[in-house]
Amino acid sequence: MSDILDRLAVTLEARKGVDADRSYVASLYARGTEAILKKVAEETAETIMAAMEGDRTKIVREIADLWFHTLVLLAHCGLRPADVLGELERREGRSGIAEKASRKQTGPQGVI
Amino acid sequence: MSDILDRLAVTLEARKGVDADRSYVASLYARGTEAILKKVAEETAETIMAAMEGDRTKIVREIADLWFHTLVLLAHCGLRPADVLGELERREGRSGIAEKASRKQTGPQGVI
Amino acid sequence: MSDILDRLAVTLEARKGVDADRSYVASLYARGTEAILKKVAEETAETIMAAMEGDRTKIVREIADLWFHTLVLLAHCGLRPADVLGELERREGRSGIAEKASRKQTGPQGVI
Amino acid sequence: MSDILDRLAVTLEARKGVDADRSYVASLYARGTEAILKKVAEETAETIMAAMEGDRTKIVREIADLWFHTLVLLAHCGLRPADVLGELERREGRSGIAEKASRKQTGPQGVI
Repeated sequence: MSDILDRLAVTLEARKGVDADRSYVASLYARGTEAILKKVAEETAETIMAAMEGDRTKIVREIADLWFHTLVLLAHCGLRPADVLGELERREGRSGIAEKASRKQTGPQGVI
Repeated sequence: MSDILDRLAVTLEARKGVDADRSYVASLYARGTEAILKKVAEETAETIMAAMEGDRTKIVREIADLWFHTLVLLAHCGLRPADVLGELERREGRSGIAEKASRKQTGPQGVI
Repeated sequence: MSDILDRLAVTLEARKGVDADRSYVASLYARGTEAILKKVAEETAETIMAAMEGDRTKIVREIADLWFHTLVLLAHCGLRPADVLGELERREGRSGIAEKASRKQTGPQGVI
Repeated sequence: MSDILDRLAVTLEARKGVDADRSYVASLYARGTEAILKKVAEETAETIMAAMEGDRTKIVREIADLWFHTLVLLAHCGLRPADVLGELERREGRSGIAEKASRKQTGPQGVI
């Protein structure tokens, strides 16, 4: 099932040649980085609201929206989900509180 | 490579039984939903900043941080990455501007 | 000049009786708390982007947008700018790093 | 009461010469624009959470936190609350749905 990210990446790439009037993603590309970032911020707000409501169906839907718009951002920047998954994999070996101590205070560079 | 999300989910689940002093994730669970949501908001801000700088390495790292903290949120709510990937897959069939017309103005329920 | 906040509060209150089709604020009220919160999140994202660009004119404009939508939120909740200004005034006496030590780690309850 | 914003601006300005170890605001200045922006994002998240809880005391406190950190951002950029209040005043004349029609779709440049 997780191949869905790769399939989405292929589709998002293909939308680069499409007229903005004919595709939601193409219209985001046309409006530029800031428009995409506003959507990412909006979906984060909706994720927070869904979690505060404790509505699990909504949480899944909003996180899907959030991931989707980060995929659009990646595509717009010439990046791919594999870059992000690779970064998560790279961190996988490093974990625990010792790792946490080695990184900047608020960031989860070394996770878990 | 995309199995990393499933492996992370297993690890995040295992952190539920761990003392908060010994694991970053366990400490987030202990501090509760709002602490996790604050981290999601913070990583979104960092993603926006990285994209504004146009720093592709940073963009990948910040989106990894953002996805990671949404995985923590999912685990905290008894959900799994497969739920989100399934939602994205469900939408995969539906695409185009016609789909967009059928949904609420600002949400990407039906994507692409 | 700072009376502008009070004047805005009066205007925002008056918009409560107006048809949603005839006023931007009335349309926000009609769409509810979540719609207002999405706007607050969006204006925060735009503030971040303006600051990253270092565009001072844009920074002023986006913070004005952000404050404005928090005023709408206050009005929608039966609150007023005076409540927020009073809270800031209350904190004014308390300052310095000693104060910081007395509050929760990440919040600026006692400021400056 | 609304003079509090001007008084805070004076205090924030004075913190520019203070050692980062001795003042919360001085420590934010020292950490730079991105650290301030992360706080703005965090306070927005807390405002959203407070509003979702419907906790009016918390809403006031979190909006105070949010305004405070935007004041820090303004000071850090050589700007003042009067710039933002002036912008809000400038818009005051223009209102109504006609105004809304004249501006970009999602921004509240001309408000009310």
